[in-house]
Amino acid sequence: MTRIEFRDLISLEKAKKRIKNNIEVKSNEKRIEDCVGYTLAQDVFSDVDVPSFDRAGMDGYAVKASDTFGAEEDAPKELKKIGEVFPGETKNLSLKKGESIEVATGAVLPEGANAVVMIEYVNEFEEKIQVRKAVAPDDNVMYTGSDIMAGEKGLSEGDVLNARDIGVLAAIGKKNVKVFESPKIGVISIGKELVPPGKELRPGEIFDTNSFSIRSELAEIGINQNFYGIVGDNEEEIRSNVSKAISENDVVLTSGSTSAGSSDLLYNVLEDGEMLFHGVAIKPGKPTLATKFKDSLLIGLPGYPTSALTIYNLLVDPILREFIGADSRKKELDAITSTKIRSISGRRHFHPVGLVKRDESNYLYPINKGSGAITSLSQAEGFIEIKENEEYIEEGTTKSVVLFSEKIELPDILFMGSHSIGIDIIRKKLSGSSKSINIGSSGGLRLMKKGIPDISGIHLLNEEGEYNLPFLKEHNLSNAYLIKGYLREQGFFVEKGNPHEAHNISDLVTKDIKFINRNKGSGTRKLLDLKLKKLSEKKGVGVDEIKKKIKGYNISSKTHSGVASAVKIGKANIGIGTRYFAQDNGLDFIKLNEEEYDFLINKDSFEKETMKEFLEQLKSNEFSEKLEEVPGLRGYDKTGEIIELDF
Amino acid sequence: MTRIEFRDLISLEKAKKRIKNNIEVKSNEKRIEDCVGYTLAQDVFSDVDVPSFDRAGMDGYAVKASDTFGAEEDAPKELKKIGEVFPGETKNLSLKKGESIEVATGAVLPEGANAVVMIEYVNEFEEKIQVRKAVAPDDNVMYTGSDIMAGEKGLSEGDVLNARDIGVLAAIGKKNVKVFESPKIGVISIGKELVPPGKELRPGEIFDTNSFSIRSELAEIGINQNFYGIVGDNEEEIRSNVSKAISENDVVLTSGSTSAGSSDLLYNVLEDGEMLFHGVAIKPGKPTLATKFKDSLLIGLPGYPTSALTIYNLLVDPILREFIGADSRKKELDAITSTKIRSISGRRHFHPVGLVKRDESNYLYPINKGSGAITSLSQAEGFIEIKENEEYIEEGTTKSVVLFSEKIELPDILFMGSHSIGIDIIRKKLSGSSKSINIGSSGGLRLMKKGIPDISGIHLLNEEGEYNLPFLKEHNLSNAYLIKGYLREQGFFVEKGNPHEAHNISDLVTKDIKFINRNKGSGTRKLLDLKLKKLSEKKGVGVDEIKKKIKGYNISSKTHSGVASAVKIGKANIGIGTRYFAQDNGLDFIKLNEEEYDFLINKDSFEKETMKEFLEQLKSNEFSEKLEEVPGLRGYDKTGEIIELDF
Repeated sequence: MTRIEFRDLISLEKAKKRIKNNIEVKSNEKRIEDCVGYTLAQDVFSDVDVPSFDRAGMDGYAVKASDTFGAEEDAPKELKKIGEVFPGETKNLSLKKGESIEVATGAVLPEGANAVVMIEYVNEFEEKIQVRKAVAPDDNVMYTGSDIMAGEKGLSEGDVLNARDIGVLAAIGKKNVKVFESPKIGVISIGKELVPPGKELRPGEIFDTNSFSIRSELAEIGINQNFYGIVGDNEEEIRSNVSKAISENDVVLTSGSTSAGSSDLLYNVLEDGEMLFHGVAIKPGKPTLATKFKDSLLIGLPGYPTSALTIYNLLVDPILREFIGADSRKKELDAITSTKIRSISGRRHFHPVGLVKRDESNYLYPINKGSGAITSLSQAEGFIEIKENEEYIEEGTTKSVVLFSEKIELPDILFMGSHSIGIDIIRKKLSGSSKSINIGSSGGLRLMKKGIPDISGIHLLNEEGEYNLPFLKEHNLSNAYLIKGYLREQGFFVEKGNPHEAHNISDLVTKDIKFINRNKGSGTRKLLDLKLKKLSEKKGVGVDEIKKKIKGYNISSKTHSGVASAVKIGKANIGIGTRYFAQDNGLDFIKLNEEEYDFLINKDSFEKETMKEFLEQLKSNEFSEKLEEVPGLRGYDKTGEIIELDF
Repeated sequence: MTRIEFRDLISLEKAKKRIKNNIEVKSNEKRIEDCVGYTLAQDVFSDVDVPSFDRAGMDGYAVKASDTFGAEEDAPKELKKIGEVFPGETKNLSLKKGESIEVATGAVLPEGANAVVMIEYVNEFEEKIQVRKAVAPDDNVMYTGSDIMAGEKGLSEGDVLNARDIGVLAAIGKKNVKVFESPKIGVISIGKELVPPGKELRPGEIFDTNSFSIRSELAEIGINQNFYGIVGDNEEEIRSNVSKAISENDVVLTSGSTSAGSSDLLYNVLEDGEMLFHGVAIKPGKPTLATKFKDSLLIGLPGYPTSALTIYNLLVDPILREFIGADSRKKELDAITSTKIRSISGRRHFHPVGLVKRDESNYLYPINKGSGAITSLSQAEGFIEIKENEEYIEEGTTKSVVLFSEKIELPDILFMGSHSIGIDIIRKKLSGSSKSINIGSSGGLRLMKKGIPDISGIHLLNEEGEYNLPFLKEHNLSNAYLIKGYLREQGFFVEKGNPHEAHNISDLVTKDIKFINRNKGSGTRKLLDLKLKKLSEKKGVGVDEIKKKIKGYNISSKTHSGVASAVKIGKANIGIGTRYFAQDNGLDFIKLNEEEYDFLINKDSFEKETMKEFLEQLKSNEFSEKLEEVPGLRGYDKTGEIIELDF
């Protein structure tokens, strides 16, 4: 394997500068109706007066103001009516003392008139009118150029055009204006393992996400792009596609194939260009590169979704926004850290965080799914910067959060804890917004103690076989209520038809079958250990001895899905988890237990409207019916019971 | 003339409700890459695990973690290397105790391995490796479903999709999703006086602005529309175009032809539909209507640009935003009123205001150009509501400003006062942003006294012929400096070739020529009056007698442009104003005076970078050269002189 070495990591700021200096700003004439959001590349002066004639500002009668002096409700002034003028008409009517001309809003003010009496204050007859209220000179008249004068500067180079500006451009008769244009952008995804969504995944393959999220980021700021598809990790294929993209665009954004990994071939393909940098001193996103070609620039983003999007947001987005005139800075917001956040020393670190509002302050919590996970970013509202020399950020520190979107709408109800399908069923019924982050039962309990989530789903089992309450006592949880939830079957996953005839816990020990466990700390593994302990007591054999006899006790998966898929593909013959995942994967299921899946509810959130809806739903017949449609789930008499925690 | 009467004005809220109830929400399947900013019309569950296999999370070597226990820099553990796996490959390699397999990030974790040692901690040889740092089980491994589990809810109906969400949809293999779609929208401008920008204006005509600003408003929230052009005030033309638009769209937005004016014919055309309302109890925008047809809704906006856009923003925009899932509320901001703002009693009033930041507080100032003016909105940052029963709002009141745009960028330097082309020349050179609002010298002085503008251009002449300083003394202006500006020629505008042979002030009185004056209170009229006073003293004749002899002394225009155009079209033979406007209109100019155009600079703004640039520019040779290119303007020895005001 040959490997690229990152010899000179450069700073984010330098990388940004080198990219910016190598993209040319272009401008182009465009029809004004297509220019909203664009930045003017010229000063715009008015060639005409707006309005270009003295104009009636109201529906009514053009008069000499002096003819109306003294007019009152009970002493109207009578004037002769000599004609009428509509907008757009150019009758050559001229008005003398004692005369009036009917006008509609926008009509040319007849010569000799210097005011308009509003229709409301006039009694109309065939050939005369009675004016019931005096007007002053200039009343209800818009004079030539009083809105915009000929020669006046309407808009300036650098102005970002909004709808009202487009109105001004129209009003002064401009059909086209010169605006700055975004560089032409091409997008390519690189990776042999990538397939487009909608296709079937073969083993080892994943769906391409980067091209979709990057193209969507561009769309968010109104930039179109050319997509060159997914190219495999094959030098020739990369070379031909990248060359095509380079020749057809000003900027090419690739993702993948930039790291020091031996399978990353993009580097070789870029030999024809001038490497501006390879390697940026930040995390995530070290493997980022930029190469300058004759008329274009290639920016190579890392392949990991979180890395790619973080780098896009840090390095590419601000430059493009500046060029096209969108707000060049991402919005920022101060928030207080709800937990200690560790960094990896040595590099500047941009860590995705979620946000929640408590007592008028914003709190942030870290999203710790790693840069390989797509949900790291989708569950985050923004990111914080941890400096090179900071090992960690203390709980309670105020940090500036760079937001991913212009508009951040925090959910009414934030679920954080162990995820269950029952939550999805209720969420659908809530009128307020909600967000659910799966951080497991212990994670949920830990953050509830700090007051972060509104609701945490938990199912924690102690050595006595009791669920949840003992743990709340242990943690002295006093800022939440415990709400009894529903029951969830746990048991063995076995191949369809149960070919190894595993029926109970002792079969694990006695039969020649490969087992796959759940990870340490998981509730499911605790259940197994409890069952094994009981078995050991019953048999009078040490529990460690029993564990040793189980083939695969120490092989584990971190998820129910992982266990199911291991059994499905024959990596193991038997696994352990909740019924839903067995059935969803076409496996047989042997019930061992029903666990109590409960909810913790933040006392601060208890009075929220959406929370009341949540509790109502939980207790409803509709919910218990829906729940029973899910394999292994059911409500029971305790569902919805509220337990005050009084430790 | 026949007229429509507004019999039942309804409230804004009722009007909004009636519109909303008569637009159907539609949803449609779309490719995910086209869905950014759209609202999901379905719940999205994952059919797959993400990742769908246990995956190497780093470049390095897959190992059994227990084989690395005890490994240190100076005591590495040696392992056999039995192969390599790239991402996307599905080699059937299996790992035993003491073995390692090289893996690249994203590769399938070989069977038997439970951790990956990062490449940085490995010495590589041909067929073996040395591990210099121990790993724990699960280190650098991403397990099946650990990002998203099969069956897990990815996104919910009602979620507004951002770029990260699109990434999630791709990651779980969705090619299309169902999203809510904007109603199909048609736009028509109605008015005989309207012509499209780019054409030549004939007398009485104006450029159509409403269709441009409304189409741009729609574009700002990402909605396309069909434009049906401008239709004249002719019933048949309106009928055929409106019918076509109604049959082809869900919502048709017209502007113009909705008021009680006799030339407004839209009302007749709408007889086929069901009138939902005609007349809304707000100002501006009373003449607004909505009519329901079989499959569509017509919303008739008023013709005046400010009214049309205000109504669009109050009535249409929030509903469309809600449908498409954009933030349904306009942003609001608290600001303090800098002056008393009067309302017109009887109706709820939405008044356009500008914003400025002073001492960490936002201040608002009213934009008083009237709803006929397009600049009323382009110079405003938003609007405030004045309630039906409020006659005025006191200075110093905190009001909520509804902002026109998501992003309001307040200018570094706000010019408010008398406008001059010299300002435009300097603005072009400033690195910071600036905005200029023409409110005349007196307006500038009044607002500077309240600390609102950064700079005010003024040219105020007193009866002794002195410029500016006496007025600052009179107003006790102490929060600003006076900066001497430049000189500006004022004089007579006469027809090309001066056919009436007017050469000086006394010719006005003695010759048979029609004069057009400037409005009362204008500096130019003051100059004339001063010259007439001197003439009266010289001749020993009363000044009023002299004024009476001038044909047209009491006929005035509010602008230089108006004066010039009156002379140009022969409405008058002679007018008065600054040289630039005479020359720009092809008129001859007879100089009477050079006025001193000066600047007031807010003391609070004096230290701003952009202000320093302004002062530097003002004193520069470049500026004085540019200035002399403008007819009638020149710098002089005092230009840039700073005068402390110490009253």
